[in-house]
Amino acid sequence: MTAAPPDVLRCAYAELVVTDLAASRAFYVGVLGLVVSHEDEDALYLRAFEEYLHHSLVLWKGSAPALAVLGYRVRSAADLDLAEAYYRTLGCRVERRAAGATRGLGEAVRVEDPLGFPVEFFCEAEHVERFTQRYDVHGAGALSRLDHFNLDTPDVPAARKYYEGLGFRVSEDIQDDEGTVYAAWMFRKPTVHDVALTGGDGPRLHHIAFASHERTQILHLCDHLGALRKSGTIERGPGRHGVSNAFYLYLRDPDGHRIEIYTHDYYTGDPDNPVITWDVHDNQRRDWWGNPVVPSWYADASAVLDLDGKPQPLTARAEAREADVTIGADGFSYASDDTEFKLGEQV
Amino acid sequence: MTAAPPDVLRCAYAELVVTDLAASRAFYVGVLGLVVSHEDEDALYLRAFEEYLHHSLVLWKGSAPALAVLGYRVRSAADLDLAEAYYRTLGCRVERRAAGATRGLGEAVRVEDPLGFPVEFFCEAEHVERFTQRYDVHGAGALSRLDHFNLDTPDVPAARKYYEGLGFRVSEDIQDDEGTVYAAWMFRKPTVHDVALTGGDGPRLHHIAFASHERTQILHLCDHLGALRKSGTIERGPGRHGVSNAFYLYLRDPDGHRIEIYTHDYYTGDPDNPVITWDVHDNQRRDWWGNPVVPSWYADASAVLDLDGKPQPLTARAEAREADVTIGADGFSYASDDTEFKLGEQV
Amino acid sequence: MTAAPPDVLRCAYAELVVTDLAASRAFYVGVLGLVVSHEDEDALYLRAFEEYLHHSLVLWKGSAPALAVLGYRVRSAADLDLAEAYYRTLGCRVERRAAGATRGLGEAVRVEDPLGFPVEFFCEAEHVERFTQRYDVHGAGALSRLDHFNLDTPDVPAARKYYEGLGFRVSEDIQDDEGTVYAAWMFRKPTVHDVALTGGDGPRLHHIAFASHERTQILHLCDHLGALRKSGTIERGPGRHGVSNAFYLYLRDPDGHRIEIYTHDYYTGDPDNPVITWDVHDNQRRDWWGNPVVPSWYADASAVLDLDGKPQPLTARAEAREADVTIGADGFSYASDDTEFKLGEQV
Amino acid sequence: MTAAPPDVLRCAYAELVVTDLAASRAFYVGVLGLVVSHEDEDALYLRAFEEYLHHSLVLWKGSAPALAVLGYRVRSAADLDLAEAYYRTLGCRVERRAAGATRGLGEAVRVEDPLGFPVEFFCEAEHVERFTQRYDVHGAGALSRLDHFNLDTPDVPAARKYYEGLGFRVSEDIQDDEGTVYAAWMFRKPTVHDVALTGGDGPRLHHIAFASHERTQILHLCDHLGALRKSGTIERGPGRHGVSNAFYLYLRDPDGHRIEIYTHDYYTGDPDNPVITWDVHDNQRRDWWGNPVVPSWYADASAVLDLDGKPQPLTARAEAREADVTIGADGFSYASDDTEFKLGEQV
Repeated sequence: MTAAPPDVLRCAYAELVVTDLAASRAFYVGVLGLVVSHEDEDALYLRAFEEYLHHSLVLWKGSAPALAVLGYRVRSAADLDLAEAYYRTLGCRVERRAAGATRGLGEAVRVEDPLGFPVEFFCEAEHVERFTQRYDVHGAGALSRLDHFNLDTPDVPAARKYYEGLGFRVSEDIQDDEGTVYAAWMFRKPTVHDVALTGGDGPRLHHIAFASHERTQILHLCDHLGALRKSGTIERGPGRHGVSNAFYLYLRDPDGHRIEIYTHDYYTGDPDNPVITWDVHDNQRRDWWGNPVVPSWYADASAVLDLDGKPQPLTARAEAREADVTIGADGFSYASDDTEFKLGEQV
Repeated sequence: MTAAPPDVLRCAYAELVVTDLAASRAFYVGVLGLVVSHEDEDALYLRAFEEYLHHSLVLWKGSAPALAVLGYRVRSAADLDLAEAYYRTLGCRVERRAAGATRGLGEAVRVEDPLGFPVEFFCEAEHVERFTQRYDVHGAGALSRLDHFNLDTPDVPAARKYYEGLGFRVSEDIQDDEGTVYAAWMFRKPTVHDVALTGGDGPRLHHIAFASHERTQILHLCDHLGALRKSGTIERGPGRHGVSNAFYLYLRDPDGHRIEIYTHDYYTGDPDNPVITWDVHDNQRRDWWGNPVVPSWYADASAVLDLDGKPQPLTARAEAREADVTIGADGFSYASDDTEFKLGEQV
Repeated sequence: MTAAPPDVLRCAYAELVVTDLAASRAFYVGVLGLVVSHEDEDALYLRAFEEYLHHSLVLWKGSAPALAVLGYRVRSAADLDLAEAYYRTLGCRVERRAAGATRGLGEAVRVEDPLGFPVEFFCEAEHVERFTQRYDVHGAGALSRLDHFNLDTPDVPAARKYYEGLGFRVSEDIQDDEGTVYAAWMFRKPTVHDVALTGGDGPRLHHIAFASHERTQILHLCDHLGALRKSGTIERGPGRHGVSNAFYLYLRDPDGHRIEIYTHDYYTGDPDNPVITWDVHDNQRRDWWGNPVVPSWYADASAVLDLDGKPQPLTARAEAREADVTIGADGFSYASDDTEFKLGEQV
Repeated sequence: MTAAPPDVLRCAYAELVVTDLAASRAFYVGVLGLVVSHEDEDALYLRAFEEYLHHSLVLWKGSAPALAVLGYRVRSAADLDLAEAYYRTLGCRVERRAAGATRGLGEAVRVEDPLGFPVEFFCEAEHVERFTQRYDVHGAGALSRLDHFNLDTPDVPAARKYYEGLGFRVSEDIQDDEGTVYAAWMFRKPTVHDVALTGGDGPRLHHIAFASHERTQILHLCDHLGALRKSGTIERGPGRHGVSNAFYLYLRDPDGHRIEIYTHDYYTGDPDNPVITWDVHDNQRRDWWGNPVVPSWYADASAVLDLDGKPQPLTARAEAREADVTIGADGFSYASDDTEFKLGEQV
């Protein structure tokens, strides 16, 4: 293939289908504290406190939860033409969208990418007030900005190759000593990732993540959910990732969409930034403190729509699954009667 | 009984038998950052940064891990006489100890209390440098002071009555709607507790706890253990307790003794401080965020020695066990295929 | 004097006269996040998140800012009789007040104390909801409880002697090598203080202080005030005190009443708690980081009312003033042309 | 001019001349916790915890404190040739340096830039261990990476134009309503800045800055310096900047070089990132909390060497100075007898 890819700046927004806008609003605005850029009967357009584009999250009312769009911002209008040509060369379905087709955004190119995800490239966007210093409305769990997407896809090396074609680079990955790749973290902006590729039945959305400044903001979200008697919303964490070194928390929104809150990762912008490969058997790779990953975190993910709004069929992962080679094979068991009460140190 | 009890100020020190002093030193000094007041071939005497008495923790080298003494400080020398008389009236074994019998402490009364624990009452103690503002040696996980003991005992109401006789008051407890008491938190100094009574086979030491100023210090201990590839040392947490509202972490020392790090509890010193009773079926009682309690936390505890240094026999709990009525009955299961991925909200 | 003093538990509430209830509400409720227990046209009754008594702060609408009452809670109803007898023996004006005379409180004894302050002793109080775990309403600057009063009084040793008569003990003080005492910190509950005595023209109220759990809550208050373009409200700090080791911030309310936010002090409850004496020339005594004390902090304080609501006349301090022996004599000067850009290390 | 500039990745290292290596080591390693990559009799090579290049700070022993080099990393070896041609076209003195001429770095181009600063461009560098997760050696004041340089230069618009020629963009600046520019913040990596240009007599180095993850690490540095009785090292802060929104602290090293510790700034990588212009009369521009800037912070800066190691002559700022239009004209005064105790809100 010889077409040049568009110059992607960063992951920029996600559009999720939710079944109850009021319940979603209570979660995303009431608990997470996202700012409402626009709302009507059909949708909520939200942003975090340091964001000045119209939105980084759109919630559409629909009959079944799903991911409708992953939005990447490109550097210039010319990159839209590159995107169109690039995906046509790849044989993907491509649609050109007029400015305003997505509220607050300019002209866009929407594709079904080779991994089966609905992806939009846009450049222009309406500017709105940046709430960076609006500490009068920052709650104790203030979020700064969208950080990344995490996608379930059956074949991680193939997906990595596709994203490398788009100019993304790998910061970290998880492998075993037979070379099976379980996950890879890839970026355009110089953080650990704009997109993570997780080996699993796909295409599915594993989660989207927002960044906070500090860990106390993440801890407050847990306290807040406890006060609401919604502790069931907390799926995993808080904890420290091995991969990325980020402090994290995974929540499940009212439709089961997984939201990560994330802070403390590192600068990756130099061309020789070392790639870190973790052994899948290292019990500190997913949680630096060795706390076990809950099974739902491995198993559950959101359905993905095509450009007609129909669910994409799933392709099963053919290679070994991370949950099986860790939890199942060498992992944690409540029935264990040895002296180790958790996964041991394996590295 | 008519004898007056001694005026207990607070829990003051614990003496633990450990099997490898070097390994214990690496944990208590190297990771927890406790200050060494004295060390020799047989023992380590340790204190936290805000403490000015000679020690709050003694580690004795021995052949099997155990609790050797729980130390309570009393207000005056006269309280030692009261203690002696009080426990003789209770029919307990009592020993009078000369000043210096425990390094750094004055005259003391040591008893086998009605619950089977070896308890020492002392008043005088050697003063050592208080490291409150020695920020040049405070690590990122700095600990302030000993906070409380937590004891496994079969009959919580009986144990509570005994401690009320000593002038302790209850701040919080866990019950079910049939009146079974699973645990009670009791204090002399005006915090949530100096001693917690946990229903279980006893006498055993469930844990001792040190206080830090903030949550970041607790989180650092986890990061530090991860860096040492000792994440297996982290048994439970970090998290927010429902009971006490404290932010917590449970570690296991090299001999399996459980150490809690604890912050954010509240003032209890007014006589009408409301007692908070939690329902044992409330999944936020032990962790406000609903994270499940790991089974080892319910099951494991340290053996307790009598005044001759021999292990005390255990009495089994006759009433329902907290682990059984929660984990077993309505709790968390990795095999669950329903939509709840964790303990649901039960209150 | 032979009368027994009442058994004081702790400082419990202050009543301030303010000139604009709406402005005060914006500050105390809107910024500090205090909970409204009751409000009407004349007054606001407020409490912090961990408090279960009806109020810890009353704001009365009046024509000129002043302190109307300092409230101390006593252990039992019998202590009210002791208080009445004690102050009559001291020759003080004493009034007995019926239950409800102060909203939410039981019977009380109100006195003009020997230092000229209006002081109320009460035992019974209405219980209200404790917001300890109401994280759904905790802002980023959540306050836990009233911590202490700080009083300007001309003769600190005389005031200390008076408070020792009430059973308070000294935790720390500031002196010079000629024995002049500039300030003393005194407590009943086992923290660094319930009341601090600051040498100055008096009687005046220097400040009242609320405690938070952590430093980030204090930092947020500054950010919040910046966002409101009310940074002029921040008088001094944030910083770390030398005395008490507490992390602090001083704000000025809309009437100029000074409010401190305070965290990280230490347990003082043992009878042999060492008293720390600071040299007035130690530039880290008031700020551990050596940041200079702003002159207004030394100079300004709130007028104090007698039991008829009339301002108490001031008695000037006869001894050296702390501001003069530090700022003036050896201190900070913007015109300095030596290489030291701040107060040097003097200890 | 038509020569293409090199593709600068980011600010990468500074070389400072210090007069006492042991004293500097006590500050940079003992207090700031920087990791020693190499040390010998002449120099110390240091890095922060997340850095994998050989060093981000070099301290050379010399007879007088000065800035010897500002290092920028470029994307590729070809950029070194571009740099050489670019500066020759500008008429600047240019030197080509062999690999290893600076320990740990590859081939380089060193220039005296048009502003009078000694600047080095390099691409290759030796990789060393990244301490990101070496929490076992992270102190409570752990620093992550070099963040930016801040330079005193007489003519800010001219300096801005020069840096725009190198591909830097402005994130924020300070102006007055007559168009005088007092300072500008410029970046290549997508943070608020790699270099800030401060209007003043120049060329001088105002400061270099390291980033931490959170505010508590910055607060600990203050506590640590207090414990060492080195509070005089703290020049300004901690505080929250208006510009950049970063939480900051300014220290002075043993030679008076100013070091900033900095966290919480924001992503600037999109091409339409809004430029924020602050009014020089806004007292929250330099400190969001309105705390006054100490005069030394405006006045003092480090001398700068030419490529022969001789001090560069200074050019005086011709335009209004920020200190004069704020502190002098409308600012803070200890002698003020009005009711404003600080700079008022001016915006």
